[in-house]
Amino acid sequence: MRADMIGEFELIEKYFNRPARRAALGVGDDCALIEPDPGMQLAISCDMLVEGRHFLSTVAPQRLGHKALAVNLSDLAACGAEPLAFTLALALPRADEAFLAPFAQGLFALAERHGCELVGGDTTAGPLNLAITVFGQLPAGQALLRSGARPGHDIWVSGRLGDARLALEVFRGRVSLPGDEFEQVRRAMECPEPRVALGLALRGLATSAIDLSDGLVGDLGQVMRRSGVGATIEVDALPRSDILAAQGPLLQRECLLAGGDDYELLFTAPRSRREAVLEAAAAANTEVSRCGTIDAGEALRVVDARGAVVAMPWQGYDHFRS
Amino acid sequence: MRADMIGEFELIEKYFNRPARRAALGVGDDCALIEPDPGMQLAISCDMLVEGRHFLSTVAPQRLGHKALAVNLSDLAACGAEPLAFTLALALPRADEAFLAPFAQGLFALAERHGCELVGGDTTAGPLNLAITVFGQLPAGQALLRSGARPGHDIWVSGRLGDARLALEVFRGRVSLPGDEFEQVRRAMECPEPRVALGLALRGLATSAIDLSDGLVGDLGQVMRRSGVGATIEVDALPRSDILAAQGPLLQRECLLAGGDDYELLFTAPRSRREAVLEAAAAANTEVSRCGTIDAGEALRVVDARGAVVAMPWQGYDHFRS
Repeated sequence: MRADMIGEFELIEKYFNRPARRAALGVGDDCALIEPDPGMQLAISCDMLVEGRHFLSTVAPQRLGHKALAVNLSDLAACGAEPLAFTLALALPRADEAFLAPFAQGLFALAERHGCELVGGDTTAGPLNLAITVFGQLPAGQALLRSGARPGHDIWVSGRLGDARLALEVFRGRVSLPGDEFEQVRRAMECPEPRVALGLALRGLATSAIDLSDGLVGDLGQVMRRSGVGATIEVDALPRSDILAAQGPLLQRECLLAGGDDYELLFTAPRSRREAVLEAAAAANTEVSRCGTIDAGEALRVVDARGAVVAMPWQGYDHFRS
Repeated sequence: MRADMIGEFELIEKYFNRPARRAALGVGDDCALIEPDPGMQLAISCDMLVEGRHFLSTVAPQRLGHKALAVNLSDLAACGAEPLAFTLALALPRADEAFLAPFAQGLFALAERHGCELVGGDTTAGPLNLAITVFGQLPAGQALLRSGARPGHDIWVSGRLGDARLALEVFRGRVSLPGDEFEQVRRAMECPEPRVALGLALRGLATSAIDLSDGLVGDLGQVMRRSGVGATIEVDALPRSDILAAQGPLLQRECLLAGGDDYELLFTAPRSRREAVLEAAAAANTEVSRCGTIDAGEALRVVDARGAVVAMPWQGYDHFRS
């Protein structure tokens, strides 16, 4: 046995077994036990991260720990749920402490910021794979769904889009950036910030919401399909960093519309609630931008600032076709 | 695109999207929404299955679907929880319908037998990996824990042990069996039956419980550690099939004590409750056998029918040391 290798039970004890706080019973028995507060529903989501698909082998373990939980918290945010707890299933080629220590550090730093407790898990040898299931709570009937968008509603997005995709294009060798700019977009790709506070602030205000993980076109398509509506997106109104804004127009549009890995919220709200949306976003300390309108029908139109239709050869990300 | 390949969203729609029944919201939004009944706690467990570790490449997809959920239901059984729902995160090398159709069939056949609803999931391309998180409910404070075993309590196990390990030894070429006997032990390995009814029947009766997944010695060790007790196991009293009973004594003991993959319950109960345990087991239509005693101290002794100590060179299964 090598000095940097530890056994399965030791690994769980050392890195993942923390005293239960909110949970009635945490890591270390057959099941964890939790209870939502009275009158609250439990919101559940799970995301699996695979090397080469959701992260590159070059990512720092601390950032990987952050991202694995962040993409799950982002789903809670899109529902307007308050994070409670999560489980982690982890397949690792070997139990390498040089990986596990910073991974756990990144994971728990984010978890603690959101009061989200690790309540159970499973570790096994195998090709690197991280599957997290996250639990949040919200008052019964108040979840933000994908199905409530209606013609005339505004379309909003949080933060800035496209930097994660721009970073990926640097890794792919298609784009080159100065070192400090690369670090900034790489941070967007590797350390997304889940919009939990915004999701909570939008309860009772947004008519639909989704988090942007597969690219705006594909994710907005889910809202359109489930709401039975069409949409118009004004591409020039999509928020972007100065770094992305300095790239060629085609690359900009690709990163904004089909980027993926943004983990920003896209949501809809009635025109009459514009002020309320801006106040909610300010209270959540999160930038939001109005970038389109829900239409009758089922078509997606993308237009520029002059209203001219923009060609859109990109599709949302499909794990089995990309 | 090949004819047997489908896209990610089509895949989810076709195989995994069923109408929500108990859940307030099921597959297809950012989160699923569920509520335990009033006064009930939610029991949560997750298990990840990796090819070559938890199943062989030779397993029929239908049985793999069954087993992936069965090992998770087994954790609920060990807690005495009633199954409610589960999430599935699935990494697949390719979206192959010849795999997915029977996989989903095996998965849902078991899920429906236990009234356990698929409420969410994630599919991605990657090395084959199945991560299920399962949710059950139980009256607050009534969970069967690993920590309640006390000196003098009887040790019981359900079903028969060791057949799964015997099948593995056939696959490894160490043992050979006639075809029908191989089919029987292979079924034990590939189609374990989670002891959900027994777990429910043992609430208020068993003082501790665990499901046997890593081998009796290792799993009993978890109960001993968390309860702060020792134990004596009578190896000749461990229940086994006629097929295992016909093997050599050393192989029998290895399969019984360090087999793994049994998915039977090991539990403890006071001597005064022997009749009640047998009645509960009969009501759950599940065979149980008394096979040892909890001791003071912290040692595990394994003895034969004459009380002589049996050598025990095997350890519980450790995914990073085996």
